[in-house]
Amino acid sequence: MKGYIHLYTGNGKGKTTAAFGLALRSAGAGKKVFFAQFVKGQIYSEIDAVKEFLPHITVKQYGLECFIINSPKKEDILAARKGLDEVADLMRSGEYDLIVLDEACIALMYGLFDNEELIDILLSKKEETEVIITGRYAPPDLIDIADLVTEMKEIKHYYKKGVEARKGIEY
Amino acid sequence: MKGYIHLYTGNGKGKTTAAFGLALRSAGAGKKVFFAQFVKGQIYSEIDAVKEFLPHITVKQYGLECFIINSPKKEDILAARKGLDEVADLMRSGEYDLIVLDEACIALMYGLFDNEELIDILLSKKEETEVIITGRYAPPDLIDIADLVTEMKEIKHYYKKGVEARKGIEY
Repeated sequence: MKGYIHLYTGNGKGKTTAAFGLALRSAGAGKKVFFAQFVKGQIYSEIDAVKEFLPHITVKQYGLECFIINSPKKEDILAARKGLDEVADLMRSGEYDLIVLDEACIALMYGLFDNEELIDILLSKKEETEVIITGRYAPPDLIDIADLVTEMKEIKHYYKKGVEARKGIEY
Repeated sequence: MKGYIHLYTGNGKGKTTAAFGLALRSAGAGKKVFFAQFVKGQIYSEIDAVKEFLPHITVKQYGLECFIINSPKKEDILAARKGLDEVADLMRSGEYDLIVLDEACIALMYGLFDNEELIDILLSKKEETEVIITGRYAPPDLIDIADLVTEMKEIKHYYKKGVEARKGIEY
């Protein structure tokens, strides 16, 4: 069965959670999932849930504990490059049915790796492998090669009322 | 901690999966989740995963096995009303930290229950309870009372290439 490339972008809440929801659905169907998180290195509650309960899903982070402020440090670039190399191998191996590249668009936006590199890797994937890419600011050439693109558009967000990030909801 | 009302609407893929991703995140933080599915009565792989692996999440369906074609049958209305009544009780009880009303907007669109009924229930919820509503065609009065609204906007979808729904990806 042919695998397709999904892209979830836009400024609204729901991109990473949609990717985790799809990972859960795939796991429920007995599929093997690799969930790569770029830029992020913090602990998220969903990772705790996956590690404790969901043996079909492997999550690996390729980011530092602190978010990038202004411009990326050398360590940010090294972490992202390591992730891209590992994901490239898995994409060609067929070892996983679904591979998620969470926040890969943010990695592109910070120049941690290039659009062309990422696109070459996506085009080299094993035919059966399904791929999900998330993150704001998806570039047009990535949108071009994706088979499914959803823009998560913020209509209203409670952070504008001063609500801070909460464990179990935002992380 | 105050709980908020999220609404994920729009014609793009990612609404139900975003709700499941948030349920997974909440479960990872030790929160109790009730996931009500309106209109749907089919088996989805994510439900298998939840039943097998995720004891913090309770999923219950309030729909028939067949989708509504043209106009709802009496059984569709009865199933949805039962769901609304059960959810209303849970919303006031504080038994669950997060309550999801998946496809509630579709139930409204088919007239299985009224906007006013749903809004009254949402406004009567225990303060701490977080609520997620999903489905296309969210009406303006629901958008008004929601604290967070994301529109999942279809930019591109592979069903237009003739790709059919696949186990582990669409269901």
